[in-house]
Amino acid sequence: MSLDLNGGRKRVLSGMRPTGKLHLGNYMGALHNWVKLQEEYECYFFIADWHALTTDYEDLSKLQSNIQDVALDFLAGGLDPEKSTIFVQSDVKLHAELHVLLSMFTSLSWLERVPSYKDQQEQLREKDLATYGFLGYPLLQTADILLYQPHFVPVGLDQASHVELTREIARRFNQLYPGSFFMAEGAAPWELEAVKTKARKNSGDAKKETFTPHELIAAAPQTKLKSGYGTRTILPEPEVLLTPSPKLPGTDGRKMSKSYGNTILMSDDEASVRAKLKTMVTDPARVRRDDPGNPEVCPVFDLHKVFSSAETQAEAAEGCVTAGIGCIECKGWLADGVVRALAPMQERRSYYESRPGLVDEILDAGGAKAWTRADETMRQVSEVMGLRYRSHGVRG
Amino acid sequence: MSLDLNGGRKRVLSGMRPTGKLHLGNYMGALHNWVKLQEEYECYFFIADWHALTTDYEDLSKLQSNIQDVALDFLAGGLDPEKSTIFVQSDVKLHAELHVLLSMFTSLSWLERVPSYKDQQEQLREKDLATYGFLGYPLLQTADILLYQPHFVPVGLDQASHVELTREIARRFNQLYPGSFFMAEGAAPWELEAVKTKARKNSGDAKKETFTPHELIAAAPQTKLKSGYGTRTILPEPEVLLTPSPKLPGTDGRKMSKSYGNTILMSDDEASVRAKLKTMVTDPARVRRDDPGNPEVCPVFDLHKVFSSAETQAEAAEGCVTAGIGCIECKGWLADGVVRALAPMQERRSYYESRPGLVDEILDAGGAKAWTRADETMRQVSEVMGLRYRSHGVRG
Repeated sequence: MSLDLNGGRKRVLSGMRPTGKLHLGNYMGALHNWVKLQEEYECYFFIADWHALTTDYEDLSKLQSNIQDVALDFLAGGLDPEKSTIFVQSDVKLHAELHVLLSMFTSLSWLERVPSYKDQQEQLREKDLATYGFLGYPLLQTADILLYQPHFVPVGLDQASHVELTREIARRFNQLYPGSFFMAEGAAPWELEAVKTKARKNSGDAKKETFTPHELIAAAPQTKLKSGYGTRTILPEPEVLLTPSPKLPGTDGRKMSKSYGNTILMSDDEASVRAKLKTMVTDPARVRRDDPGNPEVCPVFDLHKVFSSAETQAEAAEGCVTAGIGCIECKGWLADGVVRALAPMQERRSYYESRPGLVDEILDAGGAKAWTRADETMRQVSEVMGLRYRSHGVRG
Repeated sequence: MSLDLNGGRKRVLSGMRPTGKLHLGNYMGALHNWVKLQEEYECYFFIADWHALTTDYEDLSKLQSNIQDVALDFLAGGLDPEKSTIFVQSDVKLHAELHVLLSMFTSLSWLERVPSYKDQQEQLREKDLATYGFLGYPLLQTADILLYQPHFVPVGLDQASHVELTREIARRFNQLYPGSFFMAEGAAPWELEAVKTKARKNSGDAKKETFTPHELIAAAPQTKLKSGYGTRTILPEPEVLLTPSPKLPGTDGRKMSKSYGNTILMSDDEASVRAKLKTMVTDPARVRRDDPGNPEVCPVFDLHKVFSSAETQAEAAEGCVTAGIGCIECKGWLADGVVRALAPMQERRSYYESRPGLVDEILDAGGAKAWTRADETMRQVSEVMGLRYRSHGVRG
């Protein structure tokens, strides 16, 4: 299988920690977007199980069921294993290898100044997070990304700073290990000879025959470096592809989040969805049934914007500001929309749930495919660094 | 291939950085001992190429030839690929995987207080060593060791502190992730039931059927924990096997070391050995030919103790204290001994040098064998941690 036969499509990579069943916030904040991206890009989506260890190494008893649930929700949400490579991080051990290689020139200070490092230590005081692994998790994330040489990394605004570290590390790598030297198309053979002659002069060795990319770059005329000569960059800096993420409050009005216990799950059945939405907070100023409400400050309306038709939204807004409908009725209309949106996902979930082993097969096949792609990167990385590389582990 | 069919032999693991052609100090300080160990133990000896990156990531142009030279010297020195598993660290990517797993619960303070961390940063000021990889190299070394569940690690006295960190990390691992619970041989079935009943009571769940090793240990009677019940430890703490290393001065009288430029290489031909020894410093008090010397303070005599027969040593000592022989003559006798010791090694070196590809074949076969053994450890480690494990990469 040739690795470049992706029809010229650009590559996209993203991942998610295995936190368990996904909720509507996870879906709208990432998965929904991934499902669209797979139509246009060569996509790699992974479950970041090693990352779960950074904060939860003391109790991993739920890790396996969490991985299964996330994989099921990936498939339920519409990721198509024929279109996307879906895999588990720990399956592709080359993530750990690239992590070790990159660690050699990654300053401790770069990692210490990642904003989430101090923040999370503060937030999770009851856990001992002064560990080597916790300090290094943005570097592991960097390896996760660069291992697939992606053009784009779809992330939310809050994670853009992590990709900035990735870009910084990629820059440092490319500066330390420039790829092979090349000349502009159409350059005459004597031009390379001229560069080599200069490089020989620079080195003081008149018989020198092999040159590092650094030596050739240093010997090339400055003007040519701008117009045509250069080195092939092995780890291009990936671009952030900002995920459009609508405001998605949970049932208590705060951001929907597992840690707040305010979620509606992708896998919640109709009765659960209706029951949860029934208790959802609304415009606090609308105390009685005949008080008019303000949809602009009502979290229920934020969900209407995502899950209800324009017509229903208009009717709900009208009913709210005129006190024509009560909140219970408004929530019922929202529930209709959420249930309708979840139905095809839950149908897909049942399909996979009723076929034991199928999810594991998909993950295993994804892992093998991801390894093959990662192997190509590691071969290039090892070559420019000067390492011996052996392709163990490539299957199929 | 069953992994336990090693005839009940205990396992030994050690490694060496690929610094280039080995000298007599490397040989006597490690390799000479390894050659003996392979007769008695199941031995794994590796070339630690990732460790070379911690200090030399900026210029790896000699790494490949250094690996070849170390491998050749391993074989020349008498390591037998039929008896020992000889491999290159980067070939077995599971070293990086275990490194990542162990990093999750390894305190930064444990790594910061490894004596060599601050020492080397001082010594190598011109290099930027405030990197994540340099801080983590004793942890990578720990992964290198524990990955093979060795009983013994042969090291010199100066490295014993590194093995102490390895033992500390192994202890922490076994405390966090005790292996499966077992009872003393001959324990009655009701004893396990009694422990489970107590564990159910402890948990408040009267129907509980699956228990973690932690829960069973907590529910077992204290007396039984001393006499028979327990958990199977996955990463036993390896013991240090102190390498007897005779004093081995270089030609300038200081410890033989590549960085002092005072070495005699295992691959030096007779003329080089004689030329180098001719310039070796001697008892500084013996200025003239007819001054008597003192073998006890003469570095040449330290080498006689290693390379000359008892008879030659006696003659040399006698000749020295009586001024019966000159230093040149004494050094000539030493050179005879060194050349004689090196002859069979150089014969083996020529054998391998004249068969292109053979060294790579040996290293590749060793890598595959080491991976298979490491895979067994990672399977056990993953099981007790609660990770999903896939055996990519196992060959043969």
